[in-house]
Amino acid sequence: MAIEQAAGPRVISVTKNLLVKNAEAAARNREAFRCRGLYVVNVLSSPGSGKTALLQATLPRLRVRAAVVVGDLATDNDARRLHGTGAPVVQITTGNLCHLEADMVQKACAEIDLAGVGLLFIENVGNLVCPASYDLGEDFRVVLMAVTEGEDKPRKYPKMFKTAGAVVVSKTDLAAAAGFDRAAALESIRQIAPQAEVLEASARTGDGMAAWCTFLEARVSSAPTG
Amino acid sequence: MAIEQAAGPRVISVTKNLLVKNAEAAARNREAFRCRGLYVVNVLSSPGSGKTALLQATLPRLRVRAAVVVGDLATDNDARRLHGTGAPVVQITTGNLCHLEADMVQKACAEIDLAGVGLLFIENVGNLVCPASYDLGEDFRVVLMAVTEGEDKPRKYPKMFKTAGAVVVSKTDLAAAAGFDRAAALESIRQIAPQAEVLEASARTGDGMAAWCTFLEARVSSAPTG
Repeated sequence: MAIEQAAGPRVISVTKNLLVKNAEAAARNREAFRCRGLYVVNVLSSPGSGKTALLQATLPRLRVRAAVVVGDLATDNDARRLHGTGAPVVQITTGNLCHLEADMVQKACAEIDLAGVGLLFIENVGNLVCPASYDLGEDFRVVLMAVTEGEDKPRKYPKMFKTAGAVVVSKTDLAAAAGFDRAAALESIRQIAPQAEVLEASARTGDGMAAWCTFLEARVSSAPTG
Repeated sequence: MAIEQAAGPRVISVTKNLLVKNAEAAARNREAFRCRGLYVVNVLSSPGSGKTALLQATLPRLRVRAAVVVGDLATDNDARRLHGTGAPVVQITTGNLCHLEADMVQKACAEIDLAGVGLLFIENVGNLVCPASYDLGEDFRVVLMAVTEGEDKPRKYPKMFKTAGAVVVSKTDLAAAAGFDRAAALESIRQIAPQAEVLEASARTGDGMAAWCTFLEARVSSAPTG
């Protein structure tokens, strides 16, 4: 038995106003990013899918200088973890807000040294729902999906996966222990997000990291500038 | 470097109105649940922490008849998985709404056969942020935290953990493979959620399931009725 439930019009109209204002701020971000030749990647997933671990393993391998803006409700744990890579990092703590918005990213960028930086990662709040609706002015969205989370995540959170330019299947070192059904997961991604490049990586063992970094570098170097 | 970001007053006032309406519906649910002698548990976690797997392993072990209301943005995958246990199950699909609200639960309960049922599980949308703010009329909240997610989840999502009556550390069979630091995780839970009973369980191996079921049965039998 299933009940379909839509958000009431009251909620929708308020959300629309917020989204219109956010879209304006995102457009300003996008213009500013392009002007300074900055390629911007919005990194999204459930809590605990390994966004920070992926970035920790990515930053030392990249042949382009990168910086990170990282969002969390509370703590600067992730910024401290990323600080060790030597990359410029700024943490946004959102309080109880479940996603980053474009104006927060704009403020964070004013606080960070972007000299020589060609790639900016925005590590969003861990949440497979709300951040999908908020454009931050990024060039590209990456959605992580850990092998421990269940193969049907794209089907259950379609909006997020439909906006992904790439899906990274993360924590592949745990695939056997978790009984991960790779074929089912890839099929679920293909069905919901046929537009997305699919990569598989383990930040812990390094498997797949070279391909992921090459992919990112290619995106950065093919981006239009000016 | 850290930037603290609060939601603007515009957002807060709208959210307050929604929350007042939800609180009224939750109070009605609570009264109705008590009248029919129904103990209600709101089950919360990130996407992929194993809420459905825990319930699949719990239902056949319980000595009290239970039913499930399960929420997801899309698909009735979880309801289908739970249907095999023989328990009455109803799925709510929320569209793009990131949490269940009390009136949805009320509607779902009208669609389910609660004869002889003493315990109702409400499996919320996978999200560690938004569902924390929505009372559904439950007696009790259980928050799952999988060993694969990182030990600091309570510190990063404090509101959710502060409202928990119990925290279930799930997927304990993956602890060694994931390099889970049990002491750090328990310390993080104790610091943020000292009120919460802490249980550890693997739905896959059955480890800890007996203690979890005994805990639930004790809560049901000690609940006031009428």
